[in-house]
Amino acid sequence: MANADAISSLELRSLVTSTGRLELSLQRVTVAPPAPAEVVVRIEASPINPSDLGLLLGSADMATIAAGGSPDAPTLTATVPADRLAGLARRLDQSMPVGNEGAGVVVAAGSEAQALVGKTVAMFGGAMYTQYRKIAAADCLVLPDGTSPADGASCFVNPLTALGMVETMRREGHTALVHTAAASNLGQMLVRICLEDGIALVNIVRSAEQAQLLRDIGARWVCDSTAPTFADDLTDALAETGATIGFDAIGGGRLAGTILNCMEAALSRNATGYSRYGSPIRKQVYVYGSLDTGPVEIVRNAGMAWSVGGWLLPWFLEKVGPETGARLRRRVVDGLKTTFASRYSAEISLAEALRPENVAAYGKRATGAKYLINPNKGLT
Amino acid sequence: MANADAISSLELRSLVTSTGRLELSLQRVTVAPPAPAEVVVRIEASPINPSDLGLLLGSADMATIAAGGSPDAPTLTATVPADRLAGLARRLDQSMPVGNEGAGVVVAAGSEAQALVGKTVAMFGGAMYTQYRKIAAADCLVLPDGTSPADGASCFVNPLTALGMVETMRREGHTALVHTAAASNLGQMLVRICLEDGIALVNIVRSAEQAQLLRDIGARWVCDSTAPTFADDLTDALAETGATIGFDAIGGGRLAGTILNCMEAALSRNATGYSRYGSPIRKQVYVYGSLDTGPVEIVRNAGMAWSVGGWLLPWFLEKVGPETGARLRRRVVDGLKTTFASRYSAEISLAEALRPENVAAYGKRATGAKYLINPNKGLT
Repeated sequence: MANADAISSLELRSLVTSTGRLELSLQRVTVAPPAPAEVVVRIEASPINPSDLGLLLGSADMATIAAGGSPDAPTLTATVPADRLAGLARRLDQSMPVGNEGAGVVVAAGSEAQALVGKTVAMFGGAMYTQYRKIAAADCLVLPDGTSPADGASCFVNPLTALGMVETMRREGHTALVHTAAASNLGQMLVRICLEDGIALVNIVRSAEQAQLLRDIGARWVCDSTAPTFADDLTDALAETGATIGFDAIGGGRLAGTILNCMEAALSRNATGYSRYGSPIRKQVYVYGSLDTGPVEIVRNAGMAWSVGGWLLPWFLEKVGPETGARLRRRVVDGLKTTFASRYSAEISLAEALRPENVAAYGKRATGAKYLINPNKGLT
Repeated sequence: MANADAISSLELRSLVTSTGRLELSLQRVTVAPPAPAEVVVRIEASPINPSDLGLLLGSADMATIAAGGSPDAPTLTATVPADRLAGLARRLDQSMPVGNEGAGVVVAAGSEAQALVGKTVAMFGGAMYTQYRKIAAADCLVLPDGTSPADGASCFVNPLTALGMVETMRREGHTALVHTAAASNLGQMLVRICLEDGIALVNIVRSAEQAQLLRDIGARWVCDSTAPTFADDLTDALAETGATIGFDAIGGGRLAGTILNCMEAALSRNATGYSRYGSPIRKQVYVYGSLDTGPVEIVRNAGMAWSVGGWLLPWFLEKVGPETGARLRRRVVDGLKTTFASRYSAEISLAEALRPENVAAYGKRATGAKYLINPNKGLT
């Protein structure tokens, strides 16, 4: 199909009103024909990543979710506590499209992008929880033959974040790293990347089952934060690996600080003499997620050479430049069914993404409950 | 006096036992004759800076301090809570000399340092709470004629820290800065430096009196953290100045996070559209002190481009190199009675430094209660 007619598309929208009400709904939108360098993609797979949940759920209180609307036009509503509205000021009363990444088949293309028609492509750029997405051809990652949209749905966020961690580690002069919530899809990718690259990785998980899962795929250092010996286990692993940088998906609570303090304890095992300022070796934890949205609490026992800060994939990619970005994307495509394979617990339609029981499940941000939206799955 | 005999010197020592007991005492030590490139300085002035208190008081519980010993050999004891001993492991059961900086008169010099005999010099390097300190001639900063040891006692820690903040601000690409506990001696220096250099400085203080004190010396932006309008006042000041870096002397509690959040609020006033990741402009708070030794609590409302970390003068000086260090020291000496003048609430002897009422006063880390030790003041 060449420069076709406008296409009607059902799109998931998230609205937070200034009165503190979250409303998820499906809106009928019209996708205009593509410009010469654009394509229209029929999206068949788009994951619900933790990084989508902030925009999708707008800090609403999950205890208040309720179904609304009609079978043809379902909605989901919830209450956003008043003290959280200030942080959402710039999105209030605007219907926001959602979905960072997705994959599908090119169904229409402008004159300069005809070669893409019929190809399966992966995309990163927001508004992916929709049936048809218009996008610049240059922003599409063409997937190899035999790759399904579901295989390619999570090409960007998790794979590039995991590769970005390793890249950041190297650029900032560290030689080994720590990862939290390490049994996640992303965490499993990171285990495989580090095995391939011969990098020592200290995995922090929150149960014995998760620890076993990671050991089963080859992880050597796994610390269970629910074990009574956690701080000692972590310090041992840090002393063995020499890791002085960590990536934390959790954020709230004391874990980031504990990692810094255990890094310092590991470094001081080899120190001679007393320095009240601690080791001069910089200990860094980057918080890249908010599985716990509460305050980050840092009990300071790591001397003075410590740092905690935010880490964000798009800014990382901007910083390293297009060449490095292209190199990382090539590696992802090459390993899409191996190193970078994702697993989903359910494939749901747009309407099913609005059902309270599903929202409650994916809104928990629990390891192992990863949902894939297929916007072209039937509404019922 | 040339390469004289050994000198007897009374020296303040801090000992924390592995059983959790802090003991401050005065020890009689022998200072051997100086090597060719060394001098011996009779110390007449050495400040008790907040940065001395960690080593001096060893995390002891201030409610338990008690005088001991005899009038000739006074001691002070206190209990160190068991849960704080781990952080002190490397100093336990060692008698530690104390005192980061001081000034005095050169009373003996090696063959290569004869020109210094009789000069008043300032020093940085620990073990300054002593009557006679042997030190490399190269580590002495010769003070101009007419400068007393008391004038030069605080040549290093506060002046170089304040200058280091401005230097760090410039090197990391910021154009204005924030300072907490801003009515301190250091804070007043920073106000004068920023006035001289035309840099916008947002001062955060903890009372209306302190705010007035800073306004009286010319500070333009002063925010009182005890005022009910504090967050709004701070956001206004940050929007006006464009400050995106802060230096925090307090550490524990929520202030560092509040500064980041208000920086983000100030930046978002000029932003267009909604980004759930916040402004991409990096917001940095360096914690350089521990007036509150509790956990740093960061309520995250500053998007993803934020960082909190430790900052330490000696590591800063090492990083910027000797040339920059020499330039900063020259500026200090030139402004010793103006920009970099310190004020003390009391001059005390070594024995008086061990009196419970004095320890309680300087141990409070309160703005305006700065003590100067004169180790050659009579023992009584």
